[in-house]
Amino acid sequence: MRKLGVQAVEDIARGAAVLASGGGGDPYLGMVVARQTVEEFGAIELLELDEVPDDARIAVSMGLGAPTVLVEKVPRGTEPEFALEALEDACGYRFDMLLPSEAGGWNSLHPMLPAARRGLPLLDGDGMGRAFPELQMVTWSVFGQSASPIGVADERGNKMLIETDDNKRAEDLCRGATVMMGGNISLACYGMTGAQAKANSVAGTYTLCEEVGALLRYARTNRVDAYDKIMECLGAVELFRGKVQDVERRTTGGFARGVAALEGFDAYRGSSFTMEFQNEFLMAKRDGAPVCTAPDLIAAFDVETLTPITGEALKYGCRVMIVGIPCAPQWRTPEGLAVVGPQAFGYGDVPYIPVEQR
Amino acid sequence: MRKLGVQAVEDIARGAAVLASGGGGDPYLGMVVARQTVEEFGAIELLELDEVPDDARIAVSMGLGAPTVLVEKVPRGTEPEFALEALEDACGYRFDMLLPSEAGGWNSLHPMLPAARRGLPLLDGDGMGRAFPELQMVTWSVFGQSASPIGVADERGNKMLIETDDNKRAEDLCRGATVMMGGNISLACYGMTGAQAKANSVAGTYTLCEEVGALLRYARTNRVDAYDKIMECLGAVELFRGKVQDVERRTTGGFARGVAALEGFDAYRGSSFTMEFQNEFLMAKRDGAPVCTAPDLIAAFDVETLTPITGEALKYGCRVMIVGIPCAPQWRTPEGLAVVGPQAFGYGDVPYIPVEQR
Repeated sequence: MRKLGVQAVEDIARGAAVLASGGGGDPYLGMVVARQTVEEFGAIELLELDEVPDDARIAVSMGLGAPTVLVEKVPRGTEPEFALEALEDACGYRFDMLLPSEAGGWNSLHPMLPAARRGLPLLDGDGMGRAFPELQMVTWSVFGQSASPIGVADERGNKMLIETDDNKRAEDLCRGATVMMGGNISLACYGMTGAQAKANSVAGTYTLCEEVGALLRYARTNRVDAYDKIMECLGAVELFRGKVQDVERRTTGGFARGVAALEGFDAYRGSSFTMEFQNEFLMAKRDGAPVCTAPDLIAAFDVETLTPITGEALKYGCRVMIVGIPCAPQWRTPEGLAVVGPQAFGYGDVPYIPVEQR
Repeated sequence: MRKLGVQAVEDIARGAAVLASGGGGDPYLGMVVARQTVEEFGAIELLELDEVPDDARIAVSMGLGAPTVLVEKVPRGTEPEFALEALEDACGYRFDMLLPSEAGGWNSLHPMLPAARRGLPLLDGDGMGRAFPELQMVTWSVFGQSASPIGVADERGNKMLIETDDNKRAEDLCRGATVMMGGNISLACYGMTGAQAKANSVAGTYTLCEEVGALLRYARTNRVDAYDKIMECLGAVELFRGKVQDVERRTTGGFARGVAALEGFDAYRGSSFTMEFQNEFLMAKRDGAPVCTAPDLIAAFDVETLTPITGEALKYGCRVMIVGIPCAPQWRTPEGLAVVGPQAFGYGDVPYIPVEQR
């Protein structure tokens, strides 16, 4: 067990924006929310997975929606608790600890709000080890856990409870709720025991985010050195350096979808590059050939500042380095690839090849 | 108290298709469901409103969605009970009696399913005295009752609970659920006491539907005579006789929307007529001038058989009589007109004038 103070949660928000593979919600927003939460309620307890009692009652606290919306419709801060209450009302008991769904500028911070307000510990793990766009795209689902019942809330205090035995169906119903509630909402779901959390989560996600975030802070004075350290820390592969030429982006059906086109410079002069996204960057192609695909991570850094650039912030003229990062090993199994491999996102003709082998 | 047997529920289904103002769901479907329900579970108790104890626990059982979808996605029959269970789980108690939301070929029958299966009485009243397309368009809402909490279910057993303090917001959230659940679903909502049901409902809706339905049965052998009796029974005004020339219809956002254009015959030769609908017929114009608008009812009858023709069944070549029917007096107050007058449907430039005065 350790305590997360202001510095730690700021680093987590920053580092999570790298692990989010372009999605997961605005990191600046996350940083502001994190700072305010810890200043108001004090440091947050973080437990390693192996410190969790087998019979602890654990819920996942997460935001759902389009990151493009989040930038304009800033959360009020009470939604995560409203969603947790809706779930607890249905379950008839209170939860002991919370888990994030994914690494993300906003989604890594989301569970900190109810955790800080109620004094509940967070677990150092998540269901992705990165960010993915859909509710069923978590290791818990791969291991047969139900997302349902699901508490849903918006910033006005409107609440829903959703019950279904199919996690993809849960995604569809929650996505519909997201659209009706303005494009970005809070969920509390995947109620589980400590034993399940230990067996089925990706471990150490907060710690890894914090480590990367600390390196990004270090980058303010040591850019080149920090880049090398981040690449080493994440086992990352550089995919491209270039300038964004065009971003085609639609916020539709509760997702931000589109494609960014880049033109190379430095060693990549004369090459072109595209990144396709559904909230997260899912498919990167250099000169038309895939160089990194989901479930591996694709991250963009501003060339000058090393700031991670999420999908909603990409725009004409951004000068970026694009890197590929190996995903958590759970995703490289046949069961994992069925849920988050290229085929799950409609790339039926692209086989999954680990990014470090491409 | 009286019992509704097969004949009564068949008449109710048929008559409700007239009072539904073109909406409320397919009457043939309603008739089949009604017959099967009563044959399987026995006659259903119907209570007059003044027979209801003040402290009785009453819920509204209704379908929501586009009637065009209902024709192809026939209900399984268990949805209404699933929705009621979702509401009861949230309330922590069981309901004693059920109310329909509106008169409609399907919606008048909807509460009979859980009523018959559980042996609960139905109340002889509803929240409209006709059909309207949206959840907040009920007298209970006008009198300040909350629709929420709302139990929602589909035919696969997927359930939702929706909580919001704004009934229009509840409509938006439920409509979103409808779209995600395939276009037609079941709700249980507007939980109320017997005292509230007596004070705020439109009384006698089932009895009126049954009376009109019996006249439609009589019309099989006495068409002309039956038409006059129906007109008299409903205080109706004939608006037009003509042939459908065109129907523009879109099933979008959980509604069937569009406009039907007719060309006159008999006394209306040389005249044109249009009916605009959002599930229900809401605006009738003869030669471009409004002749009947919501909240008054607009009903279409097949010229040969006097069968009521609902919006989804209107098509090129239908030869119909169109009549206007005065709405329940609750809707002619300023409070009622604010919720279901022409302005509520976007006809900002058309004042409401009672159909019998136009």
